Amino acid sequence: MTTPDRRDDPDRRDDAVVRLSRRQLLAGSALAAGGLVAVAAASSPAEAIPAVPIRGPHQAGIATPAQDRLVFAAFDVTATTLDALRELCVAWTLAAERLAAGQPVGPPLNAWEPPSDTGEADGLGPSGLTITVGFGESLFDDRFGLARRRPGALAALPAFPGDDLDPARSGGDLCVQACADDEQVAFHAVRNLARLGIGTVALRWLQVGFSRTSSTTSDQVTPRNLLGFKDGTDNLKADDPGAFDRFVWVGDETDQPWLRGGSYLVARRIRTHLEEWAATPLEAQQDVIGRFKGSGAPLTGRSEHDPVELTATGPRGVPIIPLDAHVRVAGPSENAGTRLLRRGYSFADGVDPRTLELDAGLFFICFQRDPGQFVRVQSNLAINDALRTYLTHTSSSVFACPPGVPPGGYLGSTLFDA
Amino acid sequence: MTTPDRRDDPDRRDDAVVRLSRRQLLAGSALAAGGLVAVAAASSPAEAIPAVPIRGPHQAGIATPAQDRLVFAAFDVTATTLDALRELCVAWTLAAERLAAGQPVGPPLNAWEPPSDTGEADGLGPSGLTITVGFGESLFDDRFGLARRRPGALAALPAFPGDDLDPARSGGDLCVQACADDEQVAFHAVRNLARLGIGTVALRWLQVGFSRTSSTTSDQVTPRNLLGFKDGTDNLKADDPGAFDRFVWVGDETDQPWLRGGSYLVARRIRTHLEEWAATPLEAQQDVIGRFKGSGAPLTGRSEHDPVELTATGPRGVPIIPLDAHVRVAGPSENAGTRLLRRGYSFADGVDPRTLELDAGLFFICFQRDPGQFVRVQSNLAINDALRTYLTHTSSSVFACPPGVPPGGYLGSTLFDA
Repeated sequence: MTTPDRRDDPDRRDDAVVRLSRRQLLAGSALAAGGLVAVAAASSPAEAIPAVPIRGPHQAGIATPAQDRLVFAAFDVTATTLDALRELCVAWTLAAERLAAGQPVGPPLNAWEPPSDTGEADGLGPSGLTITVGFGESLFDDRFGLARRRPGALAALPAFPGDDLDPARSGGDLCVQACADDEQVAFHAVRNLARLGIGTVALRWLQVGFSRTSSTTSDQVTPRNLLGFKDGTDNLKADDPGAFDRFVWVGDETDQPWLRGGSYLVARRIRTHLEEWAATPLEAQQDVIGRFKGSGAPLTGRSEHDPVELTATGPRGVPIIPLDAHVRVAGPSENAGTRLLRRGYSFADGVDPRTLELDAGLFFICFQRDPGQFVRVQSNLAINDALRTYLTHTSSSVFACPPGVPPGGYLGSTLFDA
Repeated sequence: MTTPDRRDDPDRRDDAVVRLSRRQLLAGSALAAGGLVAVAAASSPAEAIPAVPIRGPHQAGIATPAQDRLVFAAFDVTATTLDALRELCVAWTLAAERLAAGQPVGPPLNAWEPPSDTGEADGLGPSGLTITVGFGESLFDDRFGLARRRPGALAALPAFPGDDLDPARSGGDLCVQACADDEQVAFHAVRNLARLGIGTVALRWLQVGFSRTSSTTSDQVTPRNLLGFKDGTDNLKADDPGAFDRFVWVGDETDQPWLRGGSYLVARRIRTHLEEWAATPLEAQQDVIGRFKGSGAPLTGRSEHDPVELTATGPRGVPIIPLDAHVRVAGPSENAGTRLLRRGYSFADGVDPRTLELDAGLFFICFQRDPGQFVRVQSNLAINDALRTYLTHTSSSVFACPPGVPPGGYLGSTLFDA
């Protein structure tokens, strides 16, 4: 019988390897030199990190074509120093670059150490992974000396009629939005970032989304939400860059230069009363949305991308698209031209023990230049949208997402090193 | 400006259509004639239901190559008559056939009625969908006159050391396992079956699984579980039909002939202590499992499918595969030859508010000819498995899955019409 010596196994590397540990990483000159360039250069060629879209003027995961799956996590900082926070953001930046390239979060270590990567995404490839980091209002309290760098626009949203918010699913000092076409890849990313954060941050809440409900480029097929309707036909599209500059990217108007090129992320967990909706006649559903269910066409058109004719009237002079139709009340013409980049996902979190109904719906995410854009639209929807009776908002969060990693910097360096 | 009459929309069908409602379906002769053949024949050619694998000696979703995603639901019966239960199973059978073929759960209705299908899977295709139905012990109490048809082997599992079971996530009168390669398709299936069940059953619990952790045919790639290890290398494989007859399908030994060709489903929600596991050195992780993490090879081999050599010893006479290694303690040689068909999925249900750790792990599902097979293996694992300290079983369920739909019958007809 063959009894191979276990040291033969290729998993066991007794040779010296390049390591990724926060301590070791930061003990060197990388941070002192103002960035990651030195670290990357110190890696062996086999460890070279290919360019991935976290570098550049904007973070990935905003204009990126919406991937199929989401894992979204919020964290609270448990460390007490700004240095610890900065250290974490450097580690997350390195990790995000490796993960987005389909690599393990760190290189192999010796077998007598815990592996640097948890391993469950081995062999699954990049799968379109993007990691998007944001900062919550609470990060700018007096713990880290960041109070004077809080953007004026970064504040909790006002209460809206019908809100039933769970604070345990809302807010947080930091957020990580991981999107990928394979949920195991997105989960792996969040899990490994959480692990790198042990001692610095603690998970506050986590939401899995199983199916995108928006397209963010014009060549993506419009998906259906759990209402059974095509969602996001008129969403902002990344191939319309003027629209992003106008509605999504923070510009010179900000009171905080560190946020220029970033964006505000609003996340709302919207429980959908699926049984009530399913019991609604087709015609009534279509009147609520303002579109036909099958084709996605507006009630004034015949195919999905036909224009929404808000002024069109039927034989008896009644508006064809009802006055309280979602497509009307949510649209720019009823909101002073305001538009949002929607990037939400359907969720299903089991059974609500109180009602024995599905606890499912839309984990709504949108990006905008100013949270006031969302507030304007939602203030209108919460009162005038025919859909509102089928929905309950169960969480609310706002995060300021810094710009993409600048040359020599890291995620958040414009804030922490300002 | 064009203001098309809304009656032109193809979604609006004012002509008489074939309908799928439980009432109408059963008002005819279908059930009286002992099955569905008459119903299928009554449908128009455009509505003809193609053959899908719910017919035949066994239900789909057991020997079917494991799909990527899972939505699993348990229901309690709220109706008080056997007729209502039978009616539901007929409706579920028709629905399952349509859904597995990628069709809506029912044909289009008039626009002034609620749509027969909730619509969110429109255009997504069959996506490998299988629906597997099972009956829990509680169904055989005195409510429906089924007590004398309860299989002796269908009973709650014994308590195992370390169990921390949540009754709200365990048990149920009926279960539906929906597996597909697209989670929206699996969700849509369960949601529409639940909807057909309104007034007859109520949801008890629901579990989403985002990534298969088993292969069930030898040509499937072995997936990785959240431990980061390849899982199920030595699982039963459907292309080894002798093994299924021996270990999975209920045979002549049963005290309940209605269950012949069926199988027992055991479901256990296993919370994995991911942070503790990730802090464990690679060598120790590999000793716990008995395999190398990268390759999946047994510690006595070099590639995944090399034999597990339990008697092999190292230089100092120590077993290479430790005595408490999972691969040894779970394996047939330590369990009197017992084998199970594993068909589990990874889950992530957010953050545990008590510990602020991920509430994630393995939703373990296995199929076997007798639940005693699971009890034997789990009794051993709960005491001797090195992995046990990293796991907490948080739910436990057993269901008896009837055979596939017989000619002229429906799911469960061997039980209800016996």
